[in-house]
Amino acid sequence: MSARKTALVISAHAADFVWRAGGAIALHAELGYDVTVVCLSFGERGESGKIWKRAGVTLDEVKAERRGEAERAAEALGVHDLVSFDLGDYPLEMDRDAKFRLVDVIRKVQPAWMMSHSMWDPYNTDHMYATKVALETRMIAQAWGHNPGEKVLGAPQLYLFEPHQTEQMGWKPDIFLDITPVWDKKRKAIECMEGQEHLWTYYTNLAQNRANHFKRNSGGQSGGRDSRYAEGFQSVFPRTVDEL
Amino acid sequence: MSARKTALVISAHAADFVWRAGGAIALHAELGYDVTVVCLSFGERGESGKIWKRAGVTLDEVKAERRGEAERAAEALGVHDLVSFDLGDYPLEMDRDAKFRLVDVIRKVQPAWMMSHSMWDPYNTDHMYATKVALETRMIAQAWGHNPGEKVLGAPQLYLFEPHQTEQMGWKPDIFLDITPVWDKKRKAIECMEGQEHLWTYYTNLAQNRANHFKRNSGGQSGGRDSRYAEGFQSVFPRTVDEL
Amino acid sequence: MSARKTALVISAHAADFVWRAGGAIALHAELGYDVTVVCLSFGERGESGKIWKRAGVTLDEVKAERRGEAERAAEALGVHDLVSFDLGDYPLEMDRDAKFRLVDVIRKVQPAWMMSHSMWDPYNTDHMYATKVALETRMIAQAWGHNPGEKVLGAPQLYLFEPHQTEQMGWKPDIFLDITPVWDKKRKAIECMEGQEHLWTYYTNLAQNRANHFKRNSGGQSGGRDSRYAEGFQSVFPRTVDEL
Amino acid sequence: MSARKTALVISAHAADFVWRAGGAIALHAELGYDVTVVCLSFGERGESGKIWKRAGVTLDEVKAERRGEAERAAEALGVHDLVSFDLGDYPLEMDRDAKFRLVDVIRKVQPAWMMSHSMWDPYNTDHMYATKVALETRMIAQAWGHNPGEKVLGAPQLYLFEPHQTEQMGWKPDIFLDITPVWDKKRKAIECMEGQEHLWTYYTNLAQNRANHFKRNSGGQSGGRDSRYAEGFQSVFPRTVDEL
Amino acid sequence: MSARKTALVISAHAADFVWRAGGAIALHAELGYDVTVVCLSFGERGESGKIWKRAGVTLDEVKAERRGEAERAAEALGVHDLVSFDLGDYPLEMDRDAKFRLVDVIRKVQPAWMMSHSMWDPYNTDHMYATKVALETRMIAQAWGHNPGEKVLGAPQLYLFEPHQTEQMGWKPDIFLDITPVWDKKRKAIECMEGQEHLWTYYTNLAQNRANHFKRNSGGQSGGRDSRYAEGFQSVFPRTVDEL
Amino acid sequence: MSARKTALVISAHAADFVWRAGGAIALHAELGYDVTVVCLSFGERGESGKIWKRAGVTLDEVKAERRGEAERAAEALGVHDLVSFDLGDYPLEMDRDAKFRLVDVIRKVQPAWMMSHSMWDPYNTDHMYATKVALETRMIAQAWGHNPGEKVLGAPQLYLFEPHQTEQMGWKPDIFLDITPVWDKKRKAIECMEGQEHLWTYYTNLAQNRANHFKRNSGGQSGGRDSRYAEGFQSVFPRTVDEL
Repeated sequence: MSARKTALVISAHAADFVWRAGGAIALHAELGYDVTVVCLSFGERGESGKIWKRAGVTLDEVKAERRGEAERAAEALGVHDLVSFDLGDYPLEMDRDAKFRLVDVIRKVQPAWMMSHSMWDPYNTDHMYATKVALETRMIAQAWGHNPGEKVLGAPQLYLFEPHQTEQMGWKPDIFLDITPVWDKKRKAIECMEGQEHLWTYYTNLAQNRANHFKRNSGGQSGGRDSRYAEGFQSVFPRTVDEL
Repeated sequence: MSARKTALVISAHAADFVWRAGGAIALHAELGYDVTVVCLSFGERGESGKIWKRAGVTLDEVKAERRGEAERAAEALGVHDLVSFDLGDYPLEMDRDAKFRLVDVIRKVQPAWMMSHSMWDPYNTDHMYATKVALETRMIAQAWGHNPGEKVLGAPQLYLFEPHQTEQMGWKPDIFLDITPVWDKKRKAIECMEGQEHLWTYYTNLAQNRANHFKRNSGGQSGGRDSRYAEGFQSVFPRTVDEL
Repeated sequence: MSARKTALVISAHAADFVWRAGGAIALHAELGYDVTVVCLSFGERGESGKIWKRAGVTLDEVKAERRGEAERAAEALGVHDLVSFDLGDYPLEMDRDAKFRLVDVIRKVQPAWMMSHSMWDPYNTDHMYATKVALETRMIAQAWGHNPGEKVLGAPQLYLFEPHQTEQMGWKPDIFLDITPVWDKKRKAIECMEGQEHLWTYYTNLAQNRANHFKRNSGGQSGGRDSRYAEGFQSVFPRTVDEL
Repeated sequence: MSARKTALVISAHAADFVWRAGGAIALHAELGYDVTVVCLSFGERGESGKIWKRAGVTLDEVKAERRGEAERAAEALGVHDLVSFDLGDYPLEMDRDAKFRLVDVIRKVQPAWMMSHSMWDPYNTDHMYATKVALETRMIAQAWGHNPGEKVLGAPQLYLFEPHQTEQMGWKPDIFLDITPVWDKKRKAIECMEGQEHLWTYYTNLAQNRANHFKRNSGGQSGGRDSRYAEGFQSVFPRTVDEL
Repeated sequence: MSARKTALVISAHAADFVWRAGGAIALHAELGYDVTVVCLSFGERGESGKIWKRAGVTLDEVKAERRGEAERAAEALGVHDLVSFDLGDYPLEMDRDAKFRLVDVIRKVQPAWMMSHSMWDPYNTDHMYATKVALETRMIAQAWGHNPGEKVLGAPQLYLFEPHQTEQMGWKPDIFLDITPVWDKKRKAIECMEGQEHLWTYYTNLAQNRANHFKRNSGGQSGGRDSRYAEGFQSVFPRTVDEL
Repeated sequence: MSARKTALVISAHAADFVWRAGGAIALHAELGYDVTVVCLSFGERGESGKIWKRAGVTLDEVKAERRGEAERAAEALGVHDLVSFDLGDYPLEMDRDAKFRLVDVIRKVQPAWMMSHSMWDPYNTDHMYATKVALETRMIAQAWGHNPGEKVLGAPQLYLFEPHQTEQMGWKPDIFLDITPVWDKKRKAIECMEGQEHLWTYYTNLAQNRANHFKRNSGGQSGGRDSRYAEGFQSVFPRTVDEL
């Protein structure tokens, strides 16, 4: 285990971590965290429409392109370790071995916090499945009887990053993170997603509007701290503090 | 405005702040906060059953006893300012003047955080009414056009302290505060409530069990920080942070 | 206070208690309860459309007709005491005096259980207002300092009877009551509502279908107890028991 | 009553209808609706911070400026009738007379649909109060006994327009409206709000992102209809149809 | 793909589509839709109690009877294609092959809308499992990488038809469909369910009462459109419109 | 089938039934019920941290210790039959055979009521999985076509016993059971859990505080029945009654 602080992002498909958590990743990398990202699949079947429209493309080619995009984005964000599980998508399915492989990563990383998708997503059942498994593997990683002798997991927060169409997903942010200092990195990572140019503006708009929410909740017209770009997250577990 | 940090607790009845937020008050007093407590009523009609069972007691006598208890408890907790609005209870009702009086207190205190009851309480409609007014007066205190020239309020968090029978109230804590260092003060304040001795054990049990939750969420069997007494709170508004 | 068992139904408008709780009233009357019904208004403005379509009718005439219907229905159901508050409707509003008048009834009746409308009703704000006041006055009736010397109220269950369009109201029954033995009385009371003949079939259909739910939950295809007519209710408070 | 189709928007403060429903208003004006907007207040105390920062400004001056902005915005949107109730804000309060005045407007307009704020808003209790009154007055307008002889209201849908920080308000859109054809009008109306220039970009971003949701729900990558600007709304009541 | 409009109903057991969606099916057949119904099982183990009570009956015989009933009901309703997956029930389970088989049907039909069970059903876990799979297979059918070259699915609405005991299932209709013109067909289809004669009245009562809700929401006492039989549905996804 | 009354508790791990339902079990044993407890696993991997900290301990040894504890606790409580499924934990997984084995137990016991975990538990996915299977197997046990000829199950209530951190689990008790007469037995059973001494106080505190809730809901300051120890439960299904 590193003496540095660590964090772990679990992404159902290759690009999810960029749009939804790119700012948090880049910011914590700058803050000295080793941030590990697990991509459970490349999103090769379900989130690569533009590539598939090319004549004669094969599944392996799609996966290779998506992998390349993810790697370039990860580098732009300062990801410490990008782990591709290559489990397939639409649907994403994880058997016991795949779950234990994720437990191995969790235990190796010993994250200060974990991050994954919203609990509910009627548009994309892979997303909510990833979160279900995140909870399950967090629990297994805490078990003294799983691979006895390994360092067991503590009780890291599980943050749920922002889904598309938040209201349909029942996602409610309880924390806004100012990502202004690393916005350029997130934008650069976003631009690695060459097949989805229409989303570049979408997520730039979103980051600006979340900055408005940041300001509103840090004081509003009466001295709220400025922010130009922000991300929102929902916490699953309560916090423990010594001062409110 | 004081240069010290400040906080404001809004209590429907005289004793509520003791049972539900006594630890937070005492802890923040020790941390250097000036904590103001507003008691909207003494709970003289509805929460003084034991006193009323004495023959011939008058409403003024009940109020005087309750006031005395509240003052002694406030002193035990290190409350900076105990403000009694004396609005009557069962039901508690606030007209525009009473609301503006509360706005005056909020603006004078300029709290870093506010605290009140749960949003829902079918057993005690005074409680949820107090929270409704807390939200309304927080909004008015933010209005530049209310008493122009006064310093307007920023965007302090509103914490909801723990109600009786949490599950019936739909109250869900998202933060546990370790109050071990000030437990003796809270217990002393509790013991000022002479008419409700059966609740002394109840709230001691509760503080111990909330400490168990504190530990569980700070690491569990794998290094969770110890705590012997804790309190839980629910946040109404999202937080704004620079690090998760 | 009577040595007989007692119950109290709080109805926003004159006819509500018939459609929604007529079976429970008649059944408990047969079981030896003195059932008191409070009609906060006659529903004269908002629920008397058919009468208003008659040329030249006055408000007093509408109220008199509605009162007559309610009295005949109450007699058919075996209501012990029908109390008309005549507070007006659309909107129903209750000041402190009106609330204390309701507290007086509650204390006089000392009901084993209370009953009122659903918590939410976007079609009819009078309905949810009545329930809000039912909770508030239940609380006041429990206060030792309200009219000291009177017998204070215990902790009767508050049942919410079935609203129109249950799903829109967020109403969920947790108890089904077999009203087969008193169906004829409920039907007779329903037929007292001469202006609303189209609803006679509606509520007969409903009672039959609720009997299906009764059977389904009492054993289904494997020995469920038969029922031909039933009513459903939602409980606000938890029960206390010595056997599950 | 006009033979043209009609709609009614109820806005707590003068600017709300612009940010939140400007597109729907302008679009329906173009579709031949007479759209009436009721501003219950000018937002003079609570939503005019920038004006109040000017030395020596009076309440009447603030109201006059806000009124002017609202009138210019209404003209840009093609509002048929802008009705200012001037009831005051922070807090907004409506007595029986004010409610009946709103009932008069509802009955006069006989709207095909109504529109107001979200049901919940812990930041701004005026907003949820306006919606509460919208439901109450819709009910009164349906009462045959209210001003007998007037044409009573049918059952128009009540749409809830988009609040700030949707997730905190528990607001969930079930309908997206393409406002691309009238975007220029909405933008022009937005620019009438001279004191809130920082929100111009916010609501432009939002309209673009809602257009993304429009496309996603009308076919996505497989032929979704294009839209560049959209607004979302939540329906309170069920629809009645002859074809799904 | 047909040039005609199409729709797809996914039914966990053979009879579900009759009770819950028979009106919608028959109406849309008359409107020119090709309506496909997929029965994932015959309900042979769990919903054929009456048949099993006959001495010596075998599983194959039960399935044959249920299949016959479903076919006769489908014919009465004008179903275009009745597809029996014969996957078994109590519990219904679908492996990847079964899911892909359903994806094949979805893609072949290219439905304008889909329909299945409520999201939650503690009485019958097969029901909610069918809806879970409906969402999952809808997603897969939208994936460009699933059987590349096939026409991918757009974004059809998923309607949830009415479960038994709606309130226990958390089902809330947001749309009522007038099925008066096809009631005779639905009743005829219902009567094909010979083993469940006690439910004939139940669903006739229900259709009549839903017609009352149809009327209430289309104008009430002030000109609501008449309807004698109706069905209710809950929408999962938001709609996209050009006029409210 | 016994002529005695019966009940069935389904526990994900060996100790769960002790902490959460020990009072209900002991009380009903005294009331003449044969109470069967199914432990789906021993909690050997995930809930035996203290044992695993001993050097060189093996999985079989952990299981044997946990089995011994569960047996001694069951004896203290008067459990009629303790059935250990030994399916493994963290994660608990049940294939079709395991489910049918549980159906066999349910049918053999023919319980008047069943009991299991809360519906939601983000800390411990085994818990909510057990409840999911409890609902599924209850359904299968009701199917006439499952092992035709066996006595099918009626419609027993499913109670959800109290989870750790109730508010995080969304668990809401609707029934409080007085366990004062059997508290000594529950405490003795608790003390069989030698590895978890820190929880002895926790669950004693909890039982005392639930007794406070029992009293509050049975009359409060106005004659509530006394109780010194209680347990709370949430009901899944509605009740059917002949008197409220």
